[in-house]
Amino acid sequence: MDRADAIGLQAAIAHARKSYNDGGVPIGAALVYHGEPDAQGKSQPKLLGQGHNQRIQKESPILHGETSALKDAGRLKAEIYRNSTMYTTLSPCSMCSGAVMLYKIPRLVIGENVNFKGDEDLLRSRGVEVIVLDNAECKELMRKFIAEKPEEWYEDIGEIPPPSKSE
Amino acid sequence: MDRADAIGLQAAIAHARKSYNDGGVPIGAALVYHGEPDAQGKSQPKLLGQGHNQRIQKESPILHGETSALKDAGRLKAEIYRNSTMYTTLSPCSMCSGAVMLYKIPRLVIGENVNFKGDEDLLRSRGVEVIVLDNAECKELMRKFIAEKPEEWYEDIGEIPPPSKSE
Ligand SMILES: [Ca+2]
Ligand SMILES: [Ca+2]
Ligand SMILES: [Zn+2]
Ligand SMILES: [Zn+2]
Repeated sequence: MDRADAIGLQAAIAHARKSYNDGGVPIGAALVYHGEPDAQGKSQPKLLGQGHNQRIQKESPILHGETSALKDAGRLKAEIYRNSTMYTTLSPCSMCSGAVMLYKIPRLVIGENVNFKGDEDLLRSRGVEVIVLDNAECKELMRKFIAEKPEEWYEDIGEIPPPSKSE
Repeated sequence: MDRADAIGLQAAIAHARKSYNDGGVPIGAALVYHGEPDAQGKSQPKLLGQGHNQRIQKESPILHGETSALKDAGRLKAEIYRNSTMYTTLSPCSMCSGAVMLYKIPRLVIGENVNFKGDEDLLRSRGVEVIVLDNAECKELMRKFIAEKPEEWYEDIGEIPPPSKSE
């Protein structure tokens, strides 16, 4: 894993953990600019924005991990997004996949896609490089959250919860 | 046009106008719930949320018209979205198209798609009913804005501005 990936993944996981500890949906994300090559041909990656799902904390249906990271990064010119990677702890939903496509972010690193699989195929068909890490901590955080707060999870992905076992 | 459409389109256009007058990107949107049929079989539509693009006003890259309307509507159960229509003055970008798909909003009414054409085909392929009105006021507001503030417009859609004529 290169330096940009270490920075981005670490920030995304830290935000997922923070959101879990705050009682929120534990999905974090980060946007990292690849940087300009220096005299040695090495680029210094820069963390542009980071954030986590805020459905519960801010009663917001649009603040997912990825959109929160984009919000945190603020207004950017098209060229910056086109030389950046989005990191997210969970496979992105349609809205967040669409945000990656809107800003033509060329590379997306996903912590896991076991608990939810978003629009990865669509992203690939539009030329986005999609990398799935199958990260154990990302998987465990989401698994716990879905078991503890199924209603909130299904609301977050626009799904009708399955009948609970006690009904 | 039925009553839901009159309410939704009016709110969306009013928000687009307000954003233009505030110096912002003049795109407005509204989410209207279709309502439950009463004893006469007539439903009372309800305006759930409304808003406009806030890139310039709030320095936000994620507050487009449609996402602002969703934010204004707040947290909703999946069933509500599935019986609602999204109204927007301009054809939706990938992010806002994705938001419609995430929440499985079944119907999308678009003011115009001349100044920008978003992911209408993708939405249709996912089963969304997409209606384009070719509304004269929506077209004129966007045409004026793009002519006056091309840099801001291209930033909003993640595009690199074409070289200006004076260069
Ligand atoms: Ca920041
Ligand atoms: Ca409201
Ligand atoms: Zn999302
Ligand atoms: Zn949009």
